Amino acid sequence: MKNHKLRFLIILPLFVGCFTLFGQDDEDALFLKGIHDYTLKDGMCYKWLEHLSEEIGGRLAGSEGSELAVAYTAEELMKIADTVYLQPCQVPYWVRGDEEVVHLINSDGKHIDIGGLALGNSIGTGPDGVLAEVIEVFTLDEVKSLGEKGISGKIVFYNRPMDPTKIRTFHAYGGAADQRVNGPALAAEYGALGTIVRSLTTSIDDFPHTGVTRYKEGGPQIPAIAISTMDANTLHDMLTKDVVNVYMKSNCRMVAESKLSYNVVAEIKGSTYPDEIILVGGHMDSWDVGGGAHDDGAGCVHSMQVLETLRKLDYKPKRTLRCVLFMNEENGLGGGLAYAEASKANGEWHMAAIESDAGGFTPRGFSVDANDPIFAGLYRQLLEWDDLLQPYFLSFSKGGSGADISPLKGQNGLLMGFRPDSQRYFDFHHTANDRIHAVNERELKLGAAAMTSLVYLLDNHGLSFDDE
Amino acid sequence: MKNHKLRFLIILPLFVGCFTLFGQDDEDALFLKGIHDYTLKDGMCYKWLEHLSEEIGGRLAGSEGSELAVAYTAEELMKIADTVYLQPCQVPYWVRGDEEVVHLINSDGKHIDIGGLALGNSIGTGPDGVLAEVIEVFTLDEVKSLGEKGISGKIVFYNRPMDPTKIRTFHAYGGAADQRVNGPALAAEYGALGTIVRSLTTSIDDFPHTGVTRYKEGGPQIPAIAISTMDANTLHDMLTKDVVNVYMKSNCRMVAESKLSYNVVAEIKGSTYPDEIILVGGHMDSWDVGGGAHDDGAGCVHSMQVLETLRKLDYKPKRTLRCVLFMNEENGLGGGLAYAEASKANGEWHMAAIESDAGGFTPRGFSVDANDPIFAGLYRQLLEWDDLLQPYFLSFSKGGSGADISPLKGQNGLLMGFRPDSQRYFDFHHTANDRIHAVNERELKLGAAAMTSLVYLLDNHGLSFDDE
Repeated sequence: MKNHKLRFLIILPLFVGCFTLFGQDDEDALFLKGIHDYTLKDGMCYKWLEHLSEEIGGRLAGSEGSELAVAYTAEELMKIADTVYLQPCQVPYWVRGDEEVVHLINSDGKHIDIGGLALGNSIGTGPDGVLAEVIEVFTLDEVKSLGEKGISGKIVFYNRPMDPTKIRTFHAYGGAADQRVNGPALAAEYGALGTIVRSLTTSIDDFPHTGVTRYKEGGPQIPAIAISTMDANTLHDMLTKDVVNVYMKSNCRMVAESKLSYNVVAEIKGSTYPDEIILVGGHMDSWDVGGGAHDDGAGCVHSMQVLETLRKLDYKPKRTLRCVLFMNEENGLGGGLAYAEASKANGEWHMAAIESDAGGFTPRGFSVDANDPIFAGLYRQLLEWDDLLQPYFLSFSKGGSGADISPLKGQNGLLMGFRPDSQRYFDFHHTANDRIHAVNERELKLGAAAMTSLVYLLDNHGLSFDDE
Repeated sequence: MKNHKLRFLIILPLFVGCFTLFGQDDEDALFLKGIHDYTLKDGMCYKWLEHLSEEIGGRLAGSEGSELAVAYTAEELMKIADTVYLQPCQVPYWVRGDEEVVHLINSDGKHIDIGGLALGNSIGTGPDGVLAEVIEVFTLDEVKSLGEKGISGKIVFYNRPMDPTKIRTFHAYGGAADQRVNGPALAAEYGALGTIVRSLTTSIDDFPHTGVTRYKEGGPQIPAIAISTMDANTLHDMLTKDVVNVYMKSNCRMVAESKLSYNVVAEIKGSTYPDEIILVGGHMDSWDVGGGAHDDGAGCVHSMQVLETLRKLDYKPKRTLRCVLFMNEENGLGGGLAYAEASKANGEWHMAAIESDAGGFTPRGFSVDANDPIFAGLYRQLLEWDDLLQPYFLSFSKGGSGADISPLKGQNGLLMGFRPDSQRYFDFHHTANDRIHAVNERELKLGAAAMTSLVYLLDNHGLSFDDE
């Protein structure tokens, strides 16, 4: 008899433990299905994105479009959040001005008129434009080797393609972006008169891709224009058999180094742990051309959808959920820095922050970042949700999070990046073609549902931050 | 001393074993990288697909387009395979004829002219067309319940949407396709005069989607036309407040129940086990509208790319690799049945057959099918390659393979289906919009590289078919 009782006492807790565990997993699985069902059927994200991309359009920091977007998203968020406020930040205000002119001129004097887009934050050429011989380079080191003798008085043409063999296109982008970001400043140091940059895409097409460039503080500044990959190939071919001059004209300019703008912040207060913040966000600003549909309208509406879905499912979060639409990611990070500063001043702690800034494509999962020594322990906790996320083809991987939330790393919480399929992203990135037609509604909604699922799990279960 | 020797004798084989294993995995990983590098940089598949979709266009069995496609692909395959031959098969030859006419007519006599596509293999209306009151139903059972009294003399409108909450769109398709495939025959049994079918897509747009319908042997036949989801919604709304008549006219017809056509078969002979065949294939025929780019030009060029890549990498297969482009998957399966019959007559054994017929989107993996009791053992063997395929985001799952290879199941080999991301497939499926512009070059190439990687692993390592 005694023996039997003992067995019972040992077995009971195991059984109850199993049962509870099984019950919780079931409840989670059911809730994740509810999130997906609601989002796919009734989620607002695609309609919001259509408005941002097509009604408002380009939303560069400081522009009228950016102001309209702040007003529109704040209004929409008021329908679904407890609190919505505009958080001031300082941003540069750069304008493109008139359409750029780029001519390739061979030794017979024949002009080929090609398209171009001035790089963000770059200076214009002045009304007369710049005319000079072109020199093609593939790396920044090549500019250094050529030195003043080889570079001075010339227009430098950076033409290293993105590596098509990288499976993740962001890796290929990372391997080529130095030309656009730092190439003009370096060429200027050696006396170049202007810079032409091959567009950052693996696609061979006729769309120039803009993007930010950085001059060195106090260093010389020269005009910089991106040309399409097709035109870059044409110029390359011309250069193999001829001396080529380029005429470039732009009147882009920095209107103000610092102008008042806003992040949009929307919050649902946590019921049990209101001081533990879970942030979802994207960036509101986009380049002036196109509609910023994938970059990063998608990330904004993903984040808004998280709140809408949880509200519509009548979920009461234990922790404080905050949706932040950051201003000025593209050419300054004014919004991200202001947010982090205010958060620090308020003594806040972000248990987790998730940024979506990789487009509105089919979700594949999330990349995970945190400071050592807590990283390994947090990552292990996330992997316990693998089975719950597997029906939606989502998984975790190690990697970066997002530019806007990266200043929060000092808070020692979890940082994550939403990771959709990356194959088409750089077909549209920073071009006039980044419009709603490039976004598939189901793919966008699945991304929003993925984000919401993760937020639900983080909120419902929390994370243990004990060092391991 | 003795002790030391003993240890050495025990450790050596373990060490050599580990080393060999490690070496083999490294070699495999390197080869898979080589496959991806070649395909992404230099693979021909996108160019082939451009030709199939844009130069040749629609390729319904028996049509001129299908003959041109046979000639073109055979010519291209001759450049990369040891042997290329045309395998005869019998196919039906159905033609659409003139553009369909569909009018929705409300009780005031107002006509709304909408687009329509006759279903494949359906009969036409005759020159006068069909005019009758519409009755909307959502299931085949509803038709049975309504019976002759409710159906006779009417045009039946099948309007059950695909379920948007299914994560894999093929599941949603499977849940709605009975309306198109069997709906017209059933309505005919109850005396309906015609059938209108809601297009099979989750997208709400203006493209009607065609596809095969089946009459019962010796049963009554009535005309059947697909209308777009937007028009289906319009018709539904009209029916909520009014009696609606539909006028439909088509002169599609079955020109021949049986006509000679061909599968294209290309082979590279195995060096060590020539009798073990590894098949890769897709189907050459497509619907007459559009270019059959995703369905299934993509599967054809994926399969051709497998041979091209392995040839270009100078890989000598141990087993016989066979690329088969099947005819008549869409409206008869003449090609698949002829292939299986010839294979049986020749006493062949397909160790593995892989069909790509789910579009040219980013690959996610392969579904696996085989007869019991060998299934579990084969599946376990495949899972051992997970680590090798993970860098390409590929995994195995249980499921069907492909219509064309399914008649090979009796050979007791492994059957597999290539599984790309499915979100956009039914935006284009069976429409005039299934053209090359709907295919992303990188996504297509990654699919081809995925297929090639799997073929390499199957060929290089083989499979054990011992029952477990």
